[in-house]
Amino acid sequence: MSEILDIPEVVGLQSRSDVIRIPPDLDVPLTGRVRHLVDTAEFRRLVHISQLGLVSLVFPAAHHSRFEHSLGVYRTMLLYLQRLAHVPEFAAVIETKDAELMIVASLLHDLGHWPFCHPIEDMRLPGVPQHELFANSFLLEGEIADCLRDDWGINPRDVVSFLSEKGRTSKMKLMQSIISGPIDVDKLDYLQRDSLHAGVPYGRNFDQQRLIASLCVNQAGDKLALTNKGRTAAEMMVFARYVMFSEVYWHHAVRSATAMLQRAFFMLRPQLELDSLFRLAERPMVDTMLEAAGNGPARDLLDGLFGRSRRLYKRLFEYSHFDHPELFHQIARRPYDWLVDLSDQFATTLSRHLSRRVAPHEILIDAPPVKLEVQFNIDVLQQKSGKYRALGDVSPMVETLAKRQFDDYVKKVRIFIHPRLEESIGSDLEIESLFVDTVRSMFPETG
Amino acid sequence: MSEILDIPEVVGLQSRSDVIRIPPDLDVPLTGRVRHLVDTAEFRRLVHISQLGLVSLVFPAAHHSRFEHSLGVYRTMLLYLQRLAHVPEFAAVIETKDAELMIVASLLHDLGHWPFCHPIEDMRLPGVPQHELFANSFLLEGEIADCLRDDWGINPRDVVSFLSEKGRTSKMKLMQSIISGPIDVDKLDYLQRDSLHAGVPYGRNFDQQRLIASLCVNQAGDKLALTNKGRTAAEMMVFARYVMFSEVYWHHAVRSATAMLQRAFFMLRPQLELDSLFRLAERPMVDTMLEAAGNGPARDLLDGLFGRSRRLYKRLFEYSHFDHPELFHQIARRPYDWLVDLSDQFATTLSRHLSRRVAPHEILIDAPPVKLEVQFNIDVLQQKSGKYRALGDVSPMVETLAKRQFDDYVKKVRIFIHPRLEESIGSDLEIESLFVDTVRSMFPETG
Amino acid sequence: MSEILDIPEVVGLQSRSDVIRIPPDLDVPLTGRVRHLVDTAEFRRLVHISQLGLVSLVFPAAHHSRFEHSLGVYRTMLLYLQRLAHVPEFAAVIETKDAELMIVASLLHDLGHWPFCHPIEDMRLPGVPQHELFANSFLLEGEIADCLRDDWGINPRDVVSFLSEKGRTSKMKLMQSIISGPIDVDKLDYLQRDSLHAGVPYGRNFDQQRLIASLCVNQAGDKLALTNKGRTAAEMMVFARYVMFSEVYWHHAVRSATAMLQRAFFMLRPQLELDSLFRLAERPMVDTMLEAAGNGPARDLLDGLFGRSRRLYKRLFEYSHFDHPELFHQIARRPYDWLVDLSDQFATTLSRHLSRRVAPHEILIDAPPVKLEVQFNIDVLQQKSGKYRALGDVSPMVETLAKRQFDDYVKKVRIFIHPRLEESIGSDLEIESLFVDTVRSMFPETG
Amino acid sequence: MSEILDIPEVVGLQSRSDVIRIPPDLDVPLTGRVRHLVDTAEFRRLVHISQLGLVSLVFPAAHHSRFEHSLGVYRTMLLYLQRLAHVPEFAAVIETKDAELMIVASLLHDLGHWPFCHPIEDMRLPGVPQHELFANSFLLEGEIADCLRDDWGINPRDVVSFLSEKGRTSKMKLMQSIISGPIDVDKLDYLQRDSLHAGVPYGRNFDQQRLIASLCVNQAGDKLALTNKGRTAAEMMVFARYVMFSEVYWHHAVRSATAMLQRAFFMLRPQLELDSLFRLAERPMVDTMLEAAGNGPARDLLDGLFGRSRRLYKRLFEYSHFDHPELFHQIARRPYDWLVDLSDQFATTLSRHLSRRVAPHEILIDAPPVKLEVQFNIDVLQQKSGKYRALGDVSPMVETLAKRQFDDYVKKVRIFIHPRLEESIGSDLEIESLFVDTVRSMFPETG
Repeated sequence: MSEILDIPEVVGLQSRSDVIRIPPDLDVPLTGRVRHLVDTAEFRRLVHISQLGLVSLVFPAAHHSRFEHSLGVYRTMLLYLQRLAHVPEFAAVIETKDAELMIVASLLHDLGHWPFCHPIEDMRLPGVPQHELFANSFLLEGEIADCLRDDWGINPRDVVSFLSEKGRTSKMKLMQSIISGPIDVDKLDYLQRDSLHAGVPYGRNFDQQRLIASLCVNQAGDKLALTNKGRTAAEMMVFARYVMFSEVYWHHAVRSATAMLQRAFFMLRPQLELDSLFRLAERPMVDTMLEAAGNGPARDLLDGLFGRSRRLYKRLFEYSHFDHPELFHQIARRPYDWLVDLSDQFATTLSRHLSRRVAPHEILIDAPPVKLEVQFNIDVLQQKSGKYRALGDVSPMVETLAKRQFDDYVKKVRIFIHPRLEESIGSDLEIESLFVDTVRSMFPETG
Repeated sequence: MSEILDIPEVVGLQSRSDVIRIPPDLDVPLTGRVRHLVDTAEFRRLVHISQLGLVSLVFPAAHHSRFEHSLGVYRTMLLYLQRLAHVPEFAAVIETKDAELMIVASLLHDLGHWPFCHPIEDMRLPGVPQHELFANSFLLEGEIADCLRDDWGINPRDVVSFLSEKGRTSKMKLMQSIISGPIDVDKLDYLQRDSLHAGVPYGRNFDQQRLIASLCVNQAGDKLALTNKGRTAAEMMVFARYVMFSEVYWHHAVRSATAMLQRAFFMLRPQLELDSLFRLAERPMVDTMLEAAGNGPARDLLDGLFGRSRRLYKRLFEYSHFDHPELFHQIARRPYDWLVDLSDQFATTLSRHLSRRVAPHEILIDAPPVKLEVQFNIDVLQQKSGKYRALGDVSPMVETLAKRQFDDYVKKVRIFIHPRLEESIGSDLEIESLFVDTVRSMFPETG
Repeated sequence: MSEILDIPEVVGLQSRSDVIRIPPDLDVPLTGRVRHLVDTAEFRRLVHISQLGLVSLVFPAAHHSRFEHSLGVYRTMLLYLQRLAHVPEFAAVIETKDAELMIVASLLHDLGHWPFCHPIEDMRLPGVPQHELFANSFLLEGEIADCLRDDWGINPRDVVSFLSEKGRTSKMKLMQSIISGPIDVDKLDYLQRDSLHAGVPYGRNFDQQRLIASLCVNQAGDKLALTNKGRTAAEMMVFARYVMFSEVYWHHAVRSATAMLQRAFFMLRPQLELDSLFRLAERPMVDTMLEAAGNGPARDLLDGLFGRSRRLYKRLFEYSHFDHPELFHQIARRPYDWLVDLSDQFATTLSRHLSRRVAPHEILIDAPPVKLEVQFNIDVLQQKSGKYRALGDVSPMVETLAKRQFDDYVKKVRIFIHPRLEESIGSDLEIESLFVDTVRSMFPETG
Repeated sequence: MSEILDIPEVVGLQSRSDVIRIPPDLDVPLTGRVRHLVDTAEFRRLVHISQLGLVSLVFPAAHHSRFEHSLGVYRTMLLYLQRLAHVPEFAAVIETKDAELMIVASLLHDLGHWPFCHPIEDMRLPGVPQHELFANSFLLEGEIADCLRDDWGINPRDVVSFLSEKGRTSKMKLMQSIISGPIDVDKLDYLQRDSLHAGVPYGRNFDQQRLIASLCVNQAGDKLALTNKGRTAAEMMVFARYVMFSEVYWHHAVRSATAMLQRAFFMLRPQLELDSLFRLAERPMVDTMLEAAGNGPARDLLDGLFGRSRRLYKRLFEYSHFDHPELFHQIARRPYDWLVDLSDQFATTLSRHLSRRVAPHEILIDAPPVKLEVQFNIDVLQQKSGKYRALGDVSPMVETLAKRQFDDYVKKVRIFIHPRLEESIGSDLEIESLFVDTVRSMFPETG
C-alpha cells in the first residue's frame, strides 16, 4: 500500500473522527495542523470574499465564500489522493511529502483572491497583479508561513512555487495538473458548489465518483489522465461546465453587472491604491471605491450595483459569432481601453441620433475577454490496448464544444445602456446599423 | 383560464387528495376513472413486464416495470398540460376532450409491450407485430374499452388512432408530438426512471422544470416547441439521452445479452406462436421459449441468460465507425438474417483456424439496427424576435451528437463468443483480419 | 494501521477499480471472489425474491430484489469495517479472517429467504422453518460452499454458525451485533432501499455518515455502540424505522394483502410440501399455491392478490391500543389459529345479522404478531466522561417510541372483509359492538 | 374553483413564465408587483442580514441571507394557498384580497430583522424593540408602502396589523396561523434552508409534499389543521426541528459565540443608539460596536468573533435538566442581568481559587432563555370520524419531545471561559462544586 494512505488527512476520510461540514452534506476531515491553517487571519480573510461576486445580484443565494470553496477543494484533493494511491504509476513517484504539499496547496490555492477578482483580472490593466502572485504576501510571512514550517515541515516558498510557477520536472507537472488542469480539484468543487448555491442543477450533472474512479497518469508521466471508463464522465463534466457558463457565469444580467463594475474600476483606477484595496473584504472595498468616485460618473455605476436598490443596465442588443461572425471577431478579445473608446464613439453617435446627450459611461460594451476558458486536452487511456488518445479525438461532442460552442456561442458581445435611456430608444434595427458603422470607423484602414 | 385546468386529474396535481407514490418520491394523482383503468387486467399485465428487460443482468436493480413507467408518463403529461394551458396558441385549440384523450393515451401508451419487446422488434422479422398495433387488442375490447367509454366518454378507437396512426390535422399532430417526439412525456420519464433504477446519475441530469417551463407550440401549430429559455435544458436532455445509450442501453454486456436473446429467438421463431407468446408475462414467456428450445442450441443461449447462474458471451472484439469506417458501414443496419449468415461464415472460418469445431450459435454479431434513435428536430422560439429555429441550428453540440456521435460512436459493432471458446483463442490481431476477410467474402461483387 | 484495511474488498472502496452499481448511485466493490459468490445459482435465486413482497400491491415500484439488498448490506459492512478499523478496541480483537467472515456473512445473510417469508414466519405455524436455518442447505453444499472454501478459506459451517447460532465469546457477540442489532448493516440498507423504491422519503431520513462516524464498541467489548456524537443520528434512525412501519410496512392496504395471503396459506398448508415450495421463485410459488387451492376458498383470496386484476379486502374497522386498550390486548400477539377461530365466530355472527351467508374466509382479522420489532438497546459512550449509557436513558423520545408508540400505535388490530360484503353492511357502530361481543365469547372464564 | 387560483403569483407556479431561482433548485414565481417589492431598498436590506448570524462561525457555509429565506417563505405560501384553495372550509372564507395580504405578508415577514436579532431579543433588555414592531418603520412609509398601495391595493397598515397584532376574527386568526404556528410557512422554509446551507441533513428530513397535501382547517375555523394523512409528516417536522436545535442552533460552539455576543452587547448597550444601530447591515453594525468598545473588555469578546482570527470561548462544563434537575431550574429562564451577576460572582470565586485574576467577562453563563420554542398544538382531523384531536394526543413521541426532550435536554446550561484561562484550570470536579456553591449564594433565603 502506498504511504499516501497513512497521511492523517487522508486517514480522516475513513476514521471520520473530526470533521467540519459544508454543503452538500459533506464531511471535511480536520486535523490539528489543518485547523491551524484555516483559523489564521490570512485564511479567514476568505470568509469575506464571495466566490461569485456579482452573480448574487441575479442568483440571490449565490453568496458562498472562497473559504467554503477552499475546504471543498481540499476535500476533493484527499479523494483524488486516496484513489491515485492505488494507481501504480502515481504511487511510484509521489511520496508523502509531495502529497502533503498538494494537500496544503489545495487548501491555500485561492489565498490571493480579492473581491471581484475575475472581472478585474479580465480587463488586463497594467498594475493589476495576478491573484496567484498576490497570494505570495500572505504565504511567505505571517501565521500561515509559521504553520507550514512548524506543523507541516513545508517551506512556504515551495507552496508559492507550486501554485505560481511552471513545474520543470515531470513529477512537478503531474502534481500541478491535479490542481490546475481540465479535471482539476478546483473545477470539480466549484462547478458543484456554484451550481448548488445558485439554485440550478447544471454544475452538479456529472458523475464525480466515476471520474475519480478512472483517474490515472498519462503516458509521459507528467499529467493527470483518465481511463476509458471515465470518458463519459469527462464528457459530462465538460458539458456541465459549458452549461454553467451559458446559464450562470455568462448570464446576460450577470454580464451587465460585470460591465458596470469594470467600467467603474477603469475610471477610478488612477485614484486607487491597488495593493491595499485588494487586501480589503468585499464591503470595505466597495466603500473605498464609492469614496473615490465622489459624485462622478463612476458613482452612478456603483450605486446601481451596491446602492440601496438594485439597478442594472439593460441589454440594447447582443450577438454571438454565430449571428455576426465578422462583427464578432472585430470586437472579441480586444484590449479593454479599445472597448471604452468604442463605447465613447457609440455614445457620441447615439447622442446625435437621439437628440439628447448620452454620457460615455451610459453605454457599456461587453465582449469575450482575451483569456480562453476552455481546456479539454486530457488523455484517455484505452485499457485494452494500452494506448492513450486525446479526449477531443474520441469525443466529437467535446471537440465541438471546445472549438465552436464555448467561446463563439456562449460568450456574446453585448451592448448595455443605462436604464434611463431605455425609453428614448425606439426600434432597435437602426441601432444595429449605427453600431456597425461605429465599429467600422474604428478600423479606418479597412474602411 | 383554460378549461384544461379544470380536468380532475390536472386539479389533482394541486389538491393532492388521492395519490399513489412512485420513485423518486413523486405523487401521482389518482381519480376514480384513472384507478379503474390501472386496476384492469390489461393494465396490470404491465406489472409483470420489466421496462429494461435484459439490462437487469448487468445493472441488477433495474427491475422496474412498465406499470410504474406508465404512471410516470401519465403524471408528466399532467405537468405538460398544466404548463401548456397557459400558452395561448395551445389553449386556443386544445379542448377538454382533446386533453383527456392525451391523458388517457399517456397512461396506455405502452399497453402493447411484451417482454423483451425492443430487442425482438429491432430484428424486424416477418410476422412480428409492432407493439403499437399489438396494443389494439387490449384497447378495443375488454375492461379498458368499457372504462374509456363509460368513465371518460372516449371512443377506444380514438385512442388507437392517436397512438398508432399518423395524425392528419395540425391539432392531432401537435397532440401526438407531445407523446412521441424529441421531448415527449415518454422520454422525460424513462430517462429519469431507467437512470434511477440502474443506479447511475446519467439520465437524471437535465433541468426538467426549466424544460417544462419553456414548452410552447411551433410556428405551424403542429408540433411541440421550446422558447429559447429552454434551449440549454433541451441540450441537457439530448446529452442525457446520449449518456444513457452510451453507458446503459448499449453497455457491452447488455448488448451481449441482447445478441444472445435475439439469436435464440431467431432460431426458435418457426416453432413459436407469437400472438399468444407475446401475451405472456416475462417468466412464462421465457419458459415457453425454453420448452421450444428442447436440447437444441437455443437452449444453451437461453440458459446463459435465464438459467440458474448467469453466463454471458464474451467480447471477441468491437469497433465503431470511428475505428473502422468502411467495416462499420458494411455491417451496420443490415437485415438480421444477413448477420446470422455472416456469423455462420465466421464460425466456419474460426473452426478451421482453431482446429476445433465452433458451432454457428457460438458466434454472435451485434450491430446497430436499422432504426435510428435520434430525433432532435425541435424548434426553438427566439422570444425577442419571434423567430423559430431548429435546435440543431442553434446548438452545434446537438448537431454533432445527432449527426456523428450517437449512431457512429455509441452503437458499435461487436463480435461475441461463447465463454467456453475464450481460452482457445490467443492473440486477437489475427482474429480481426480473419473477420475482415469473412466480411469481404459476403460482398463478392466488390471483392 | 489495522490489517482490516488491506482486505481487497475494503481496498475496493477507495481504488474503485471494479464495481457494480445499485441505487441510489452506489458503487459496490467487486473482487473475483465476490463475483463468484454472486454468480452462483444459490445467490442468483435472490434475484427472483422481492424484498417487500405484497407491499408492491400498494407501492407499485417496490419491486426490488433481495439480490440488490444483499449487495447493499455487503457494501455497508465494508463501510462499517473501514470505520471500525480506526477504533482501537475493535482493531485489537478483530483479525483479517474475522472481518472476512463478516463480509461473507453480510452478503449471504438473506440466502434462506423465500417469497413472502416474513408474513409466513409471523404466523408461527408448526413445520415452517426459520429462514436463517433454511439457509443452511444453500450454504453447506453446492457452489457457495466450494467458493467459500476455495476462494475465501472459510469453512461454510462457520458462516452457518455466525448467522444462526448465538455467539459464545465476546468477540463473536460483537461481530454478530454488527449484522443483527439496533443499528446493524441490514437495517441501514433496508430502511433506505425500501424507502427509495416505495417512492417515499421516510427511511432515508437519517444521517448515515454521522452514524458510521460514531461507531465504537461497548464497555464489555461484546456489542456495537456509539459515541455521543452519534446520539442524534441514532435517534433519527429509530425514528425513520418508526415512520417506515407506520406508513409502509403496516400500511392498512399492505396489511389487508398480508392477511389475505396468511389465511390462504393457513388453509392450504396441509396440502403443501413446504421444503420444495420455499425453494421456488415468487411466481412459481404462487402458481403452486393456486393449484393446491383448486376452486376452494383459498383461490378467491389468492386471485385477489395475484389474479388478473387487483382486489384487496376492505377495512371494516381498526383500532390501536390507544383507542381500545383492553380489546387490543385481548387480540394482539395471539396464536394465528386463535385469530382464525375468532374470525370464524365473527363470520357466523355477521351471517345472522346480515341475513346472508358470510363465509369464514370473507372475514380476516389482522393483529400484531408475537414478534416485537423494536430493539433500541444500544449503548452511547459519553466521550468526555468515558461512561456508557443506554440510548433510551439519554433519549426520552426513543424510550417513548420503543415502549409505547411502536407496538401500541403503529401496529393496529384490523378487521378486513371481502369487497363483495361492503355494500351489505350499513352503519359500523353496531358492527363494533358485535365484534366486542364475539371477542368476549372467546374468553368464557372472564365473561 | 376558488378565485385564489387566479391570483397571478399562484398562477405563476404553473405557468412558470418568470422566475428567480434559489436553492434547492426552486423556482420562485415573480410578477411585476413582486419584483417591485423585492427591489426596494427596505427589502434589499435583507441581502446583508444573514439568516443564522453566528452559526457561520461553526458551520462555515451557513451564510444565507434573510432575502433568500423571504423568497422561500413567499413561495411556500403560494404552495399552501394552491392546496387550501381546494379545501372547502378555507375557500369559503378566504377571498382574493385576503390571500394577497397573506402573500405580501409572507414576503415581508422578516423586514424588521436586524443582524444577530434573535440572540439580542433573547436577552429581553429594556429598550430593545421586538423585530415585528421594528418592521413598521419600513412598512408604513417609503417605497414598500407605495408599492403596496399602488400595485397591490393593500393598505400598509393592514400588513402591520397582520404581522404584529393578534387577530380578532376567526378568519384573521386562521390567516395568521399560516404564517406563525406549528407548521407555518416560515418554519417549513427555514428548517430546510438552514439545514441545506449548514451542510447537514437534519432539517430536510420531512415529507413536505405530504404535509401540504394534508393541510386543512380546524373545527373552530380559526387555525390551520391537518388531516390524519399528514400526522406522520407532522411528527417528522417536529422531529426535524428538534434535531436542528440539538445539532445546529444549540450546538455548543454556536452557544459559546452567542454568549460572547450577548455579553458584549450587554456591556455596550448604554453607549449604543439602538434605533440607528439596528438599521445597519451586519458588518457596519459590528464596526459600530467595535468602536463603542474601544479598548474595554467588550473589545476582547468582539475580536474573538469578528476579528482577524476566530477565537471562541471554551466549555468549562455543561449540564441539562436530565443531569442536574435542581441546578438546571435555578438558572434556566432567568433574566439576563441575573446571569451576569452570577458569572461575576463565579469569576470572583475562581480568582480566589486560581490565585490569578479572572475578569468578570472571562466567564460566560449560557442558559435557556425565557422564550420557549416549542409549539406543537395543531389539530389532526380523523377523516373517517370527522373528529379533531390534538397532535400531542395521538402522538406520544411528539408529547415527549414537546414536554421533556426539547427544553430540558437540548437546551443546556453551559459555562464558558476565555481560552486563556483554559490551562490554569486543572480537574473540573472542584469547579463544579464551586459553581454549585456560587449558585446557592445567589439564593440566600434558601441557603
